[in-house]
Amino acid sequence: MIQGDGPYRVLGADTLPAYLVTLEQVRALLGGPPAEWRVREVGDGNLNLVFIIEGRAGAVCVKQALPYVRVAGPGWPMSPQRAYFEQAYFHSVAPYVGAAVPKIHHYDPQLQCIVMERLSPHVILRQGLIAGQHYPRVAVDIGEYVARACFFTSDLARPFEQKMDGIALFARNQPLLRITVDLIFAEPYFAAERNRHTSPHLDEAARTLRLDGAIKSAAAGFGHKFLNCPQALIHGDLHSGSVMVTATDSRVIDPEFAFYGPIGFDLGAFFANLLLSWYSQPGHARGVDDRGAYRDWILEQARIFWATFHHRFVALWIESGEGDAFSRRMFGERGDEMALARVRADFMHTLFTDMLGFAACKMIRRILGFAHVLDLDGIADAGMRASCESAALAMAAALLKTPGQFRSIDDVIDAMQDTAARRTE
Amino acid sequence: MIQGDGPYRVLGADTLPAYLVTLEQVRALLGGPPAEWRVREVGDGNLNLVFIIEGRAGAVCVKQALPYVRVAGPGWPMSPQRAYFEQAYFHSVAPYVGAAVPKIHHYDPQLQCIVMERLSPHVILRQGLIAGQHYPRVAVDIGEYVARACFFTSDLARPFEQKMDGIALFARNQPLLRITVDLIFAEPYFAAERNRHTSPHLDEAARTLRLDGAIKSAAAGFGHKFLNCPQALIHGDLHSGSVMVTATDSRVIDPEFAFYGPIGFDLGAFFANLLLSWYSQPGHARGVDDRGAYRDWILEQARIFWATFHHRFVALWIESGEGDAFSRRMFGERGDEMALARVRADFMHTLFTDMLGFAACKMIRRILGFAHVLDLDGIADAGMRASCESAALAMAAALLKTPGQFRSIDDVIDAMQDTAARRTE
Repeated sequence: MIQGDGPYRVLGADTLPAYLVTLEQVRALLGGPPAEWRVREVGDGNLNLVFIIEGRAGAVCVKQALPYVRVAGPGWPMSPQRAYFEQAYFHSVAPYVGAAVPKIHHYDPQLQCIVMERLSPHVILRQGLIAGQHYPRVAVDIGEYVARACFFTSDLARPFEQKMDGIALFARNQPLLRITVDLIFAEPYFAAERNRHTSPHLDEAARTLRLDGAIKSAAAGFGHKFLNCPQALIHGDLHSGSVMVTATDSRVIDPEFAFYGPIGFDLGAFFANLLLSWYSQPGHARGVDDRGAYRDWILEQARIFWATFHHRFVALWIESGEGDAFSRRMFGERGDEMALARVRADFMHTLFTDMLGFAACKMIRRILGFAHVLDLDGIADAGMRASCESAALAMAAALLKTPGQFRSIDDVIDAMQDTAARRTE
Repeated sequence: MIQGDGPYRVLGADTLPAYLVTLEQVRALLGGPPAEWRVREVGDGNLNLVFIIEGRAGAVCVKQALPYVRVAGPGWPMSPQRAYFEQAYFHSVAPYVGAAVPKIHHYDPQLQCIVMERLSPHVILRQGLIAGQHYPRVAVDIGEYVARACFFTSDLARPFEQKMDGIALFARNQPLLRITVDLIFAEPYFAAERNRHTSPHLDEAARTLRLDGAIKSAAAGFGHKFLNCPQALIHGDLHSGSVMVTATDSRVIDPEFAFYGPIGFDLGAFFANLLLSWYSQPGHARGVDDRGAYRDWILEQARIFWATFHHRFVALWIESGEGDAFSRRMFGERGDEMALARVRADFMHTLFTDMLGFAACKMIRRILGFAHVLDLDGIADAGMRASCESAALAMAAALLKTPGQFRSIDDVIDAMQDTAARRTE
C-alpha cells in the first residue's frame, strides 16, 4: 500500500513518543517508560523530518516525509508517498547487501514515516570529508554495495519478469524523478529561476557553459539515458550525504529517489561527490594542514571505488549470471567463455563512461543549479570558493565534452592532478 | 480493467451472434436480423480466434484471445489478458496515427475479445508479397506509422510522467514478452526443443551459427537492449503478417506484444520481413515470372521504409519536440540548433543500427527457431527453400557480426544485391 487511509499529520518531538509507544517492537527496543525517551530532530537534508529517539534500552531513528520540500517550504509541495518508495527500495536490496542498509523496524503508510535502526556512532560521510577524516572502508564498501544492489536487481541475475514488476512499482515515484529530471538534467543549462552560483566570480563560466551546445547535448544525452535505461534498481541519490560511516562500517541511507535506471547514475553520484570533495579541499585548509595529503587519499578512494565495483560486478556476473540477459543457455559451447568475456568488458566500459558522464552532470548541478553541497558552500571566502568551483566545473565540462580522453580511471585521476599542478605553478 | 469478473468462455460461430446482439452499437452497425448475420472464423495467426461477421448493413471483425497458444494447443497456456494490451495499444497510438489502425468498436474484459472494424478488401501484406503483388503505399505508410506512433509516445514529445505511466501499464504484458525473450533472443542460438529448420540442408549452418560466440553475443546484446530501452510504445510484432493492405491503404493490426521498448525493434521487424520476402522470391518464381523485377521492387520498399521513417521522425522532433528529453528550454541559444542537429543525427544512426540488429535476430528466428514464415515455409521444394533460407541466414549473420560494414541503407542493399549476383554467377 502506497498511502494509508487515515489522516496524515506532521510528527513533532512532543507527539512522537505517544506514537512510538503503540508499536510494540519499537517500544521494547527503546525500553523503559516513554516519559524518559529523549527525542531530537536532526534532519539536515532537503526533504524530510528526522528524529533520534533514545530510551533506556536502545534507540531508533524516525524519518517522516513532509508534504513539501523541506528546504523550500510549503510553497513547493511534494508527495509524502516518497517514504513508500524509500522502504520499498530497502526491502528490495536488503537480501543482497545485508547490513549495508539500516534495519527497518516499521513503515507507516498513513504518516509516511519509517522507524529504522539508529546508526551510531556513524557520521554523514560528507561531514567527515569536510572535516578531513579518513574512512578506510568506505570506498570498498560502497563499490561492493552498488555492485551487489544493481547486479541482483538486473536482468543479468533474474528472470525479466521480476525486474519488470519492479519497474512498474517504482514508475510511480514520479514526483521525485521530476526533481532529478529538472534540477540535474535541465535547469543548470539555462537561466532557470531556481539556479544560483557564486557571483560574480562564476558569472562568466556559467554563461560560457550555457552557450556550449556540445556540453548541453552531452548532458541532455545523459538525461535521456536516465529515463531510458532501466538496468537495475538504483538508489537515485547516492551522494556523500546518503552514506553514513565509521572507521569500520559504511551504511547507505535516503533512497527515496529510487527507481529502475542506469547503474552509472549511482556510480556517478558517489564518484562526483568524491571529486567535489577533492576540489573543495583547498577551501578547508587550516594552518599547517594544507589538505594536500588528504586530497591524495580522496583521489585514491575514487580509484578504489571504481575498481571494487568493477571487480565485484564481473565476479557476480560470472558466478550468478542466471538472468534473461546473455542467457547461460546460449553460451554453453567451448569458446563461448571468451565471447562472454568480451561482452562483459564492453558492458563494464559502458558503465564506466556512464559513471563519468553522470558524475559530470552531478558536479555541474551542485555548482550552477539549485541545490549545492556543503563541501563547497561551506567555504566562507567567496574567492576561494569560486576558485574550487571553477576547477571542478572545468573538469566536469571536459568529462562531457571530450569523453574519449578518459579511457580508464587513471586518465581521470591524471587529468585532475594535472590541472591541480598547473594551478599551483 | 485487465480482466472482467465474469467467466471466460471461448466464442464460436454459433454463439457469436447472441453475444453481439447485446452490443447496441455493433448491432446497429451490422443491421438486419441477427439470424441473417454470416459468421466465419478466419484466424490464421499463432495465437487467437478471429471472426468476420457480416450483416445486412455492415461487417465487423471479432478477435478473441484464447487461454493458450493457438498454434501449439492447450498444452501451452497463455494468459488471454493479452487482448487488454492490444486494445490499450490501439487506444494509445490512435490519436497520432489516425486510420492506420482499425477502429475499435468494443473491448470485453470478460471474454477478452475485441470487436473492431472489418478491413475490406484488405489482405495480409505477407500474402500479397508471396503472391508477387505491388502495394505502392505500404512502405511510406508503415514508415510514417512507426515514426508517429513511436515519436509521440517517447520522451522527445511528452513529459516523462506520461511515458512512465505507460511503462507501468504495459510492464504487465509479461506472458507475451516472455515469448519474445525466449523465441527471438535465446532459443535460436542453442539446441532448444522447440526449434526446427530445413533439415538436413541447414544442419551445418545451424551448427556453425550456434558455435559462433560473436554472433551469439551480438544477438544477446540486442536481447538485453529489448529489455532495457523503453524509448517508446512499440507494437512488438510488426511483421508483414501484422499489416493489411490495399493498393491505396495500409493498416496495422495485432499489437498484443506491445510494450515500451526500443524503437528499432518495430523498425527491425518490418525491415526483416521485407528482407525475408526478398530472399524467398526465387522459391515463388513460376514459368516466365522469375520474380527478378519484383525482388527489385521489394528492396526499393526497404529503402523507402527507412527513408520515410527517418524523414518523418526528424521532422516531428523539430516541430513537436516538447518532451523532457533534450528539453527545448536548454537549447534556446544561437548556435544550439547546430548542436541539436548533431544530436538528432546520432540518435537516428543508433535507430538505424538497432533496426539492422533487431532485423537480423528476427530473420534468424524465422529460419532456425520455433515460428517460421509462410514466405519460406510455403516453398515446397526443400532444396530451393534451404537455398533461400541459407542466403537470408548469411545476411543476418553479417548484420550481427560486422555491423560496422553497414553505415547506410545503401550498404545493406548493395550487400544483398552482391550476394544475389554471386549466387547467380
